[in-house]
Amino acid sequence: MVKYQLSLFIFLFCSVISTSICAKEPVDILIINGRVLTMDDQLNEYSCGVVAIKGNRIVAIGPQSMAQRYQAQTTLDVDGDIVMPGLINAHTHASMSLFRSLGDDVANRLHNYIFPLEKAFVSREMVYKGARLGNLEMLKGGVTTYADMYYFEEEVAKAVDEMGLRAVLGQSIIKYPQADAKTPKDAIELTEQFIKKYKGHPRITPAFAPHGPYTNSTDDLKTVARLSLEYDVPVLTHLAESKKEQNVIAKRSGGLSPIAYLESIGALNEKLVGAHVILAGEQDIALLKKHQVGVAHNMSANIKSAKGVSPVVEMLKQHVDVGLGTDGPMSGNTLSLIDEFNQVAKVHKLWHQDRSLMPAIDVIKMATIGSARALNLAKEIGSLELGKRADIIVISTKSPNMTPIYNPYSALVYSANATDVQHSIVDGRLLMKNRNVLTADEKEIIDQATAFSQEIKQSLLQQGKSIL
Amino acid sequence: MVKYQLSLFIFLFCSVISTSICAKEPVDILIINGRVLTMDDQLNEYSCGVVAIKGNRIVAIGPQSMAQRYQAQTTLDVDGDIVMPGLINAHTHASMSLFRSLGDDVANRLHNYIFPLEKAFVSREMVYKGARLGNLEMLKGGVTTYADMYYFEEEVAKAVDEMGLRAVLGQSIIKYPQADAKTPKDAIELTEQFIKKYKGHPRITPAFAPHGPYTNSTDDLKTVARLSLEYDVPVLTHLAESKKEQNVIAKRSGGLSPIAYLESIGALNEKLVGAHVILAGEQDIALLKKHQVGVAHNMSANIKSAKGVSPVVEMLKQHVDVGLGTDGPMSGNTLSLIDEFNQVAKVHKLWHQDRSLMPAIDVIKMATIGSARALNLAKEIGSLELGKRADIIVISTKSPNMTPIYNPYSALVYSANATDVQHSIVDGRLLMKNRNVLTADEKEIIDQATAFSQEIKQSLLQQGKSIL
Repeated sequence: MVKYQLSLFIFLFCSVISTSICAKEPVDILIINGRVLTMDDQLNEYSCGVVAIKGNRIVAIGPQSMAQRYQAQTTLDVDGDIVMPGLINAHTHASMSLFRSLGDDVANRLHNYIFPLEKAFVSREMVYKGARLGNLEMLKGGVTTYADMYYFEEEVAKAVDEMGLRAVLGQSIIKYPQADAKTPKDAIELTEQFIKKYKGHPRITPAFAPHGPYTNSTDDLKTVARLSLEYDVPVLTHLAESKKEQNVIAKRSGGLSPIAYLESIGALNEKLVGAHVILAGEQDIALLKKHQVGVAHNMSANIKSAKGVSPVVEMLKQHVDVGLGTDGPMSGNTLSLIDEFNQVAKVHKLWHQDRSLMPAIDVIKMATIGSARALNLAKEIGSLELGKRADIIVISTKSPNMTPIYNPYSALVYSANATDVQHSIVDGRLLMKNRNVLTADEKEIIDQATAFSQEIKQSLLQQGKSIL
Repeated sequence: MVKYQLSLFIFLFCSVISTSICAKEPVDILIINGRVLTMDDQLNEYSCGVVAIKGNRIVAIGPQSMAQRYQAQTTLDVDGDIVMPGLINAHTHASMSLFRSLGDDVANRLHNYIFPLEKAFVSREMVYKGARLGNLEMLKGGVTTYADMYYFEEEVAKAVDEMGLRAVLGQSIIKYPQADAKTPKDAIELTEQFIKKYKGHPRITPAFAPHGPYTNSTDDLKTVARLSLEYDVPVLTHLAESKKEQNVIAKRSGGLSPIAYLESIGALNEKLVGAHVILAGEQDIALLKKHQVGVAHNMSANIKSAKGVSPVVEMLKQHVDVGLGTDGPMSGNTLSLIDEFNQVAKVHKLWHQDRSLMPAIDVIKMATIGSARALNLAKEIGSLELGKRADIIVISTKSPNMTPIYNPYSALVYSANATDVQHSIVDGRLLMKNRNVLTADEKEIIDQATAFSQEIKQSLLQQGKSIL
């Protein structure tokens, strides 16, 4: 009897102990055996680590030994692959994927190709189909958030929402009549409706997108700046991109640079995200810093257009928030960011004649936490930290180009390509697993885009334009 | 009876007709439904075409209607994908794949990383394992031929032969003692043995590889030039690459440029293939043309090292034979060429401030027939033409980044990445089908390379060197 009582006691004691020690916390997704690059302020890394996700948030991050604390609905054993924050494409025009590569090597591309193409083809249908193709390419290339400027931006929002990505979406405002708005006034009203519809969406941030300082009037730029503060939304714009812009603005403002001009009209503030920012001197950079303006660096597009190299090295020294963008597919031409990484590092080295400049880690920072800061989203995304949204990608370390790996940042910048991305999680939801997109029919998207491109091709040939 | 005889007559008549009209020519491989880019002198294309292969040669090429003439052992229906000549990597050091990305962002990389690494680790085993990894990456990235310079080049030859690739392999000759040869004299003897062993091989062209003009004596350079003509083999060398080289040669020659110096010692001829050729003026370019020297352009490595932009635009105007190379994986860093295409176009546009310069077609020419001419192999490879060796790749047009396609050359240069390559045929043999390598065990190669890299990593850490 004593023996029996002792056994019972031991049994009960152990049950209590095991319940208290071993009760596992339920989580939705548990990533294990990852080479975790957090991209937090200390650049913490776990050579073999775990990330736990509950709902749309990161609830744990640490060494592999932590794995046993969690009971997950879905466990991803990534077998040493790189686990990092999703990439943030800070500037693009996703729907232009349907025009991809048209006019690549043409001198006056804007007036010969882009404007006529947009006049002929921009429609709700085109914007939606193009956005779906762009979204697919970005998802498969590790982009989890992107900032977009285009027309019928509501269609982009629809495509983003369906695929499950995160985006900052700017409705375009420009002084020329467009398919979705005849005047800038109409475009501003359209933007206000768009903002009212999407403000508070868990993954979509609506925004104003004045095309550029030189393609909008001072009054319209002032109105946009005022409204952006009232609505508490970003303003996406092309800024200090071309000599033409520089000349127009200098004439309008009595010699000011585009950046100084925007300050003079009260349009420079923390809501503003300037894309390109190639023609910026020391004083311009100081203004960007002073007013906490975000910058989207688009190396690949800037050099293809022969416009120059943005002074990003100097901006980073002055602690301006610089993110990385691909620009649109008639400019970049891919949307995946990863394929652009090595150019960012290499061209800055070339430009400054110093191979130690723009090391790999700076490029990865720019594509993650840098873009998040530029877009004012760093509280929620851009790094793997407790409580942040779970926007996470896993990148294979097993392709020949990723073998061997000594420094993971170097491998990502100089060796990886878009297809090394294996899994993608946005807002706690697994959107791609083993390169299979779970939230869209890839073939349908590609077939629809191809069919649409046939119409464009026929039209160009009928106009006697060669398909350059 | 009459009816029966008539039927018999019709049957026999039709049999004879069908035998004479429809007797199909047996071929080994028939590629059908391809978007065929021949890269021949007229840049002939077939929007829907076929290529027939018998043994190691192309026996037919033309529109889809030709398909019915052939009875093939293997038919590849490529469903509209791009069919083109295999890419030719005109300059690399494949075995350095084991050192990939070490010292990427380090100022004095050559003396701090490369030389010490090579001193510690270059061995027969390292060269073989590294070459296998490099071969795998190239095969999967659409490279069917490459020109290599390294030590123990016989091991590279072994790896190339096993995987079925084509290569021009240069045994290194340099004034410093190396693992495979204590003196340049030893290295020259080693090269002669290598040449005797491989001369006449269907896929391997043995070559001399003096490291550079400044790292070899005048006497040794003269000896190599003389022997290359005697053996009728190429000479691969780094040429006009750095200011250090320029200074050493100017001092040695009384002020000559590296190219003018090589001419002065009788070492400039059609056997020579110069890699990099960054520091070349008008007179140098004229000398290259006069002596029919081949050039390997390595844009990606040249800009990463901040050495400058080679005057390739001028060379092409002067009809110098320029091919495209990746350089080694400590420099480039990938070996796939495709991932480098867009940089070649974009950086020349930037450098010359003209977005119409270096159009896509020029980049594709450089990577195919251009490299073939530079390596003196244009009679056999570099374009899809009757009677040429069957070195052919098929590139998918169905990935999101390759959708849509208006101009295939633009898509290849600005949008494709290495993993869009679907099939690869070298010397008439299918080496990769649907991205599965048929002539090697991919996992074994990657696992062996990874294991070897652990030794390198330990050694670097023991020396107190960070893994940069």
